[in-house]
Amino acid sequence: MNYLYKFFLILLVFVSCTKKNESIQKENDVTQHPNLILTSKSVLEIKSQLGTIPVFDQTLNKTKEEVDAAIKKGIDVPIPKDMAGGYTHTQHKKNYATMQKAGVLFQLLGDEKYAIYIRDMLLEYAKMFPTLPRHPQKRSYARGKIFWQCLNDSNWLVFTSQAYDCIYSWLPKEQTEYLNKTLFKPFADFLSVETPQYFNRVHNHSTWGNVAVGMIGLVMDDEELVNRALYGLENDNIDPKAKDNDGGFIKDKAGKAGFLANLDSPFSPDGFYTEGPYYQRYAMYPFLIFAEALQNKKPELKIFEYKNGVLIKAVDALLNLTDADGEFFPLNDGQKGMSYYTSSLVSAVDIAYYYGTKKPELLSIAKKQNKVQLDATGLSVAIGLREHKEKSFIKKSMELTDGSRGDEGGVGILRYQKEEETLALVMKYTGQGLSHGHYDKLSFSLYENGNEVIQDYGLSRFVNVEQKNGGGYLKENKTFAKQTIAHNTVIQNETSHFKNNYAIASKNHSEKYLFDVSNPDFQIVSAKEKNAYPGTELHRTMIMVNDDKLSKPFIIDITKVTADKKNNYDLPYYYFGQIISMNFKYQTPKTLSTLGDKSGYQHLWKEGAGMANAENVQFTWLDNKRFYTITTATNKEDEIVFARIGANDPEFNLRKDPTIIIRKKQIKNTIYASIIESHGSYSAVKEVAKNAYSNFSKIEKIIDDVNYSSFKIKFKDGREKILILSNTDSNPKKEHSLNINHKKYNWVGAYYYK
Amino acid sequence: MNYLYKFFLILLVFVSCTKKNESIQKENDVTQHPNLILTSKSVLEIKSQLGTIPVFDQTLNKTKEEVDAAIKKGIDVPIPKDMAGGYTHTQHKKNYATMQKAGVLFQLLGDEKYAIYIRDMLLEYAKMFPTLPRHPQKRSYARGKIFWQCLNDSNWLVFTSQAYDCIYSWLPKEQTEYLNKTLFKPFADFLSVETPQYFNRVHNHSTWGNVAVGMIGLVMDDEELVNRALYGLENDNIDPKAKDNDGGFIKDKAGKAGFLANLDSPFSPDGFYTEGPYYQRYAMYPFLIFAEALQNKKPELKIFEYKNGVLIKAVDALLNLTDADGEFFPLNDGQKGMSYYTSSLVSAVDIAYYYGTKKPELLSIAKKQNKVQLDATGLSVAIGLREHKEKSFIKKSMELTDGSRGDEGGVGILRYQKEEETLALVMKYTGQGLSHGHYDKLSFSLYENGNEVIQDYGLSRFVNVEQKNGGGYLKENKTFAKQTIAHNTVIQNETSHFKNNYAIASKNHSEKYLFDVSNPDFQIVSAKEKNAYPGTELHRTMIMVNDDKLSKPFIIDITKVTADKKNNYDLPYYYFGQIISMNFKYQTPKTLSTLGDKSGYQHLWKEGAGMANAENVQFTWLDNKRFYTITTATNKEDEIVFARIGANDPEFNLRKDPTIIIRKKQIKNTIYASIIESHGSYSAVKEVAKNAYSNFSKIEKIIDDVNYSSFKIKFKDGREKILILSNTDSNPKKEHSLNINHKKYNWVGAYYYK
Repeated sequence: MNYLYKFFLILLVFVSCTKKNESIQKENDVTQHPNLILTSKSVLEIKSQLGTIPVFDQTLNKTKEEVDAAIKKGIDVPIPKDMAGGYTHTQHKKNYATMQKAGVLFQLLGDEKYAIYIRDMLLEYAKMFPTLPRHPQKRSYARGKIFWQCLNDSNWLVFTSQAYDCIYSWLPKEQTEYLNKTLFKPFADFLSVETPQYFNRVHNHSTWGNVAVGMIGLVMDDEELVNRALYGLENDNIDPKAKDNDGGFIKDKAGKAGFLANLDSPFSPDGFYTEGPYYQRYAMYPFLIFAEALQNKKPELKIFEYKNGVLIKAVDALLNLTDADGEFFPLNDGQKGMSYYTSSLVSAVDIAYYYGTKKPELLSIAKKQNKVQLDATGLSVAIGLREHKEKSFIKKSMELTDGSRGDEGGVGILRYQKEEETLALVMKYTGQGLSHGHYDKLSFSLYENGNEVIQDYGLSRFVNVEQKNGGGYLKENKTFAKQTIAHNTVIQNETSHFKNNYAIASKNHSEKYLFDVSNPDFQIVSAKEKNAYPGTELHRTMIMVNDDKLSKPFIIDITKVTADKKNNYDLPYYYFGQIISMNFKYQTPKTLSTLGDKSGYQHLWKEGAGMANAENVQFTWLDNKRFYTITTATNKEDEIVFARIGANDPEFNLRKDPTIIIRKKQIKNTIYASIIESHGSYSAVKEVAKNAYSNFSKIEKIIDDVNYSSFKIKFKDGREKILILSNTDSNPKKEHSLNINHKKYNWVGAYYYK
Repeated sequence: MNYLYKFFLILLVFVSCTKKNESIQKENDVTQHPNLILTSKSVLEIKSQLGTIPVFDQTLNKTKEEVDAAIKKGIDVPIPKDMAGGYTHTQHKKNYATMQKAGVLFQLLGDEKYAIYIRDMLLEYAKMFPTLPRHPQKRSYARGKIFWQCLNDSNWLVFTSQAYDCIYSWLPKEQTEYLNKTLFKPFADFLSVETPQYFNRVHNHSTWGNVAVGMIGLVMDDEELVNRALYGLENDNIDPKAKDNDGGFIKDKAGKAGFLANLDSPFSPDGFYTEGPYYQRYAMYPFLIFAEALQNKKPELKIFEYKNGVLIKAVDALLNLTDADGEFFPLNDGQKGMSYYTSSLVSAVDIAYYYGTKKPELLSIAKKQNKVQLDATGLSVAIGLREHKEKSFIKKSMELTDGSRGDEGGVGILRYQKEEETLALVMKYTGQGLSHGHYDKLSFSLYENGNEVIQDYGLSRFVNVEQKNGGGYLKENKTFAKQTIAHNTVIQNETSHFKNNYAIASKNHSEKYLFDVSNPDFQIVSAKEKNAYPGTELHRTMIMVNDDKLSKPFIIDITKVTADKKNNYDLPYYYFGQIISMNFKYQTPKTLSTLGDKSGYQHLWKEGAGMANAENVQFTWLDNKRFYTITTATNKEDEIVFARIGANDPEFNLRKDPTIIIRKKQIKNTIYASIIESHGSYSAVKEVAKNAYSNFSKIEKIIDDVNYSSFKIKFKDGREKILILSNTDSNPKKEHSLNINHKKYNWVGAYYYK
């Protein structure tokens, strides 16, 4: 195998040195194609390194195999007909992906067969396009021509532009003129002026549209198209009340549009993308690939410096929004399992490395990905790896603000790492996150190593599984996954935050109160939500405490509720696995009914319930061979509910995951105080349960008023700690003094723990 | 680290060469202790190799660390009080384990501190024992003294005998005489003559009892005890109707008892242990360690040749009763996750290697285990590994017969392996399996790689998790896990096989009809059950077909039911994961009720049901990122039920796993015919569903009479296959001829497939 591989590499170099194409000889001429992603200069650089850059060589090798196989199958440009997953859809997707790769191969290997393949396919599209109506499938608010929605048409153009650029100089001028006039200019107009409701938005879909138009504009040197891409259409006549298929408003609040607007608005200064990591991952490719093209052709725009270098920051933010396995936290609509191994992140990591500060931490991610983008950025990564420059990418605790100015809440991530053992707590106090946002202010999820301990449900969809609604969103996404009860946060009166009203939710965001991770043994995040329920203020504080007597940190979870009237409150914890023990009495019903009839409650089976009947409730479960316990301060009137997802789910679309809900009824002000801990393990081989019991005997509220909330935490080893939170002043320099049970506590800053 | 390790090894050798104890100098003297597991001769051999046998050295090193830590803690011999998991229980367990290890260390390292530790601890036990009453916890039918049950007391003596042997010659004679008289002889009598209902049985517990008495008999050269161990008590006065805690009869059917009887009866000639792999794993240690002791002290018994070498065969059988990860198939009472990494299997593999034919395949298992038994057997394994003699242990398809003469049915395992991709189908047609047996004749489970595709529920118990009934069996083990409905086999009229009656079930077994794996592309197992339901015969045939057009084999699953009256039949398939699609109409209820009120049905929630309404039903699900489909021939009157475990489970003891049940109602004779396939995969990173659809359009019954059943299998690629099964003659040489739809089929043997 090794010999074969070396032989192939030598062959590659040989081919690339002998079959050079005249048109790609002139070095450093920016008017000369390729000049979009590959450039004449980078092509020469890459060719000089081929055979010595293992990751690049392997990726190239694999790409060649794929494209050669596709060429062997012949060109197939069918009349558009099918939905996602269907034949014509899949074929057109393959076409643009193969063309883009063939363009790269033509440039790097110089074999004309790749250019011929692209040319012939483009001529087929040019033949078809002028008379092509909108796609026959009518499900989209912005139907495409080749695909059922403009989004996919834009994908086509973003990739095809790159292929076209690679053969532009090789084609006779009359052929480029023909293609420009017959196919590409009309295609760009179709996506923009003819579909303004799609093009002129702030939305990840529109970013693809902007980039598609911009990329082809750059290839054709069409300044008008490039400007349209960057700044949007001046007049779009979009109804400000119009909504898209996901229920999001089409018209931007500020009336902005175009690539730069899409860069301004959904990204916070920290590089957090308001829709959430799953969509950020999807959007990163057009953002970065267009930025790379702009940097190549319009370096005067200094696009990578735009908004203090937000594009590079966004890659860093995205890598930090992953668990120990590199899987993105499924905030808002997020499919679980998507990770930084996806191809758009390969591209993102390479571009961020090359155009950023060549951070060696990015190389360690690239090394795991084990492939690179086939251009100058991938070359530099491959060289970095060849020279073993990589450093571990240690994910640190951090806050990522939301909002274009960073003042619309954010996401707080608290982390712990000791050798292979990690914990990550993610608390969400962002804005709504556009149409893919969920209604879950002040929610959180907890990870241990690569595993979810307390989960965020994510989206309800089997992406690209045709049997499940053609791979599209399922109706349970709206009726359950987006509802507040699907999340680990307080629900008032069994109604979702903002009454599940997108218009209201979009106008609001939570407010950061405190984020302080300066002490690794006491990391704290705290935020307030005043608008989810008018008349009620929610204030959640989560603390990761690394206690030197315990083997792992524990979480303190406090939610203070201040209301102007009596309400019912529910706080669910979505755990996994099997219940081991509880210290309160409960009943299990003979038949199962739903927990409610709306706001997602209709999807929960009530499996049991009991009154707390004590000042503390403990709940221990076993999952992934680990023991976990939630210890929570209760009143005798509090109810504990066991529920499981899956009711009113006629298509079996939902996962049947369990939850425990702490219910406080008919009360105005109240406070939830819990400890969440991972404390033990089970070995099925040794049949030994290690530390199967909680380390705590209780957590107890001592004081809870407007200004301060304080708690006593009792460990089983007899120790006691006092926690005091300042509820109104988060100033780290503020001096506090408080009498509790005739003892005076003095401290500086928003919290006391001793 | 490496240097430190080498330094330590040199130190070990040095210590062992200088601090030699006089009493262990005399080579090859069998009257000289140790002579039980370690012998004077093997001690010298081991010492000559120390430092050159990495696996042995590592194990020794780790053992020393453990024992040194225990010695540091001091001796603690508390008055017995607690149940399993409690303090006194755990401490006494630690004591015998540490003593056994300390004995080995004394012999191999020569440091007297280990001998002193054992001596002092034994003196503590000797002080306590004479006045010790039976254990205060009264849950066992055979209460111990140190522990709540004699089983654990026997564990204590089996391990402690080894420790005692290691210091026997080092102790002054008056001290051995004192210990023999005060502690060990009374202990042996207590376990045997004083507790005949425990000692004089054929049962894994009694094996421990026999071995305990035999081991200490060998140490003390007490022939009477050794004979008692080998042949049992002559008179036991046990009531033949008496039962143990698990509901098993105490008195053996044939009235036999003792070690040899326990070797005769529960083991089949193939080495299959009738209780199932989980208990075989537990029983292997006393069987093999006593065999090793007998071989050392009474080689004239030729114990390893007993019953055609069944002990060595049993190790091979047990290793073959595992999935791709080495986890035992959970037939009968089996805790999932238990695997050949457990310490009793380390011992078993080493003993089987040394006393068997030194099979290099065993070395590959030992290599995975990465530790050895610290005696001559472990030495030989460590030397084999040092010399890289290991070969892969390829698990092949095989039948393991049940019954002491191998004529009481068996277990058929069909396997497929291509590189890393494996399938394993396990069909059970054994006898009852004593008190740990489940009521599931002709059931099966299916594995893909290390994962369960169609599961056997296993036991209902959290072994050694104190919160769950002290780690003991849960009541749901009887009410659900042992019932037929918990298994993938036919249930008649919602009643378990043999009416769940242990006495009746114990008198019966299924009958093998056919097991033929000579053709790797068409492996077949077939068996009949005539007694589970009087008046009804069940005949199941399972075939693993490796079709060259498909990427993986599929399973054909046929169950022919012949009855003397109309009945209802249920065939459940316990799948995992999420439902993707079905091709029939069904309803899901607004509230969930149980599927029935007895025989385990009371533990199933009915999540949905529909009439087949067609001649074929297909059901596709997604689990572990793989797509699976069951295609089954139906009548319009057949009902399909979706159910989930978890009803009537007030302690949340059960796993909430799903099942699909094919229900045929009010019919006399009928036949189930299904295809089970693993056909596709899903990537959450690429968001690609590969082969998400079944390869089959249908399976269709053509003929079903007394003599023949035949089926047409239609592939989606248009191909058709005819399967014909001879129902009454499994002779491979028999010539058959049959007309089906005016076409004549001629073939030889019990089946036709073309």
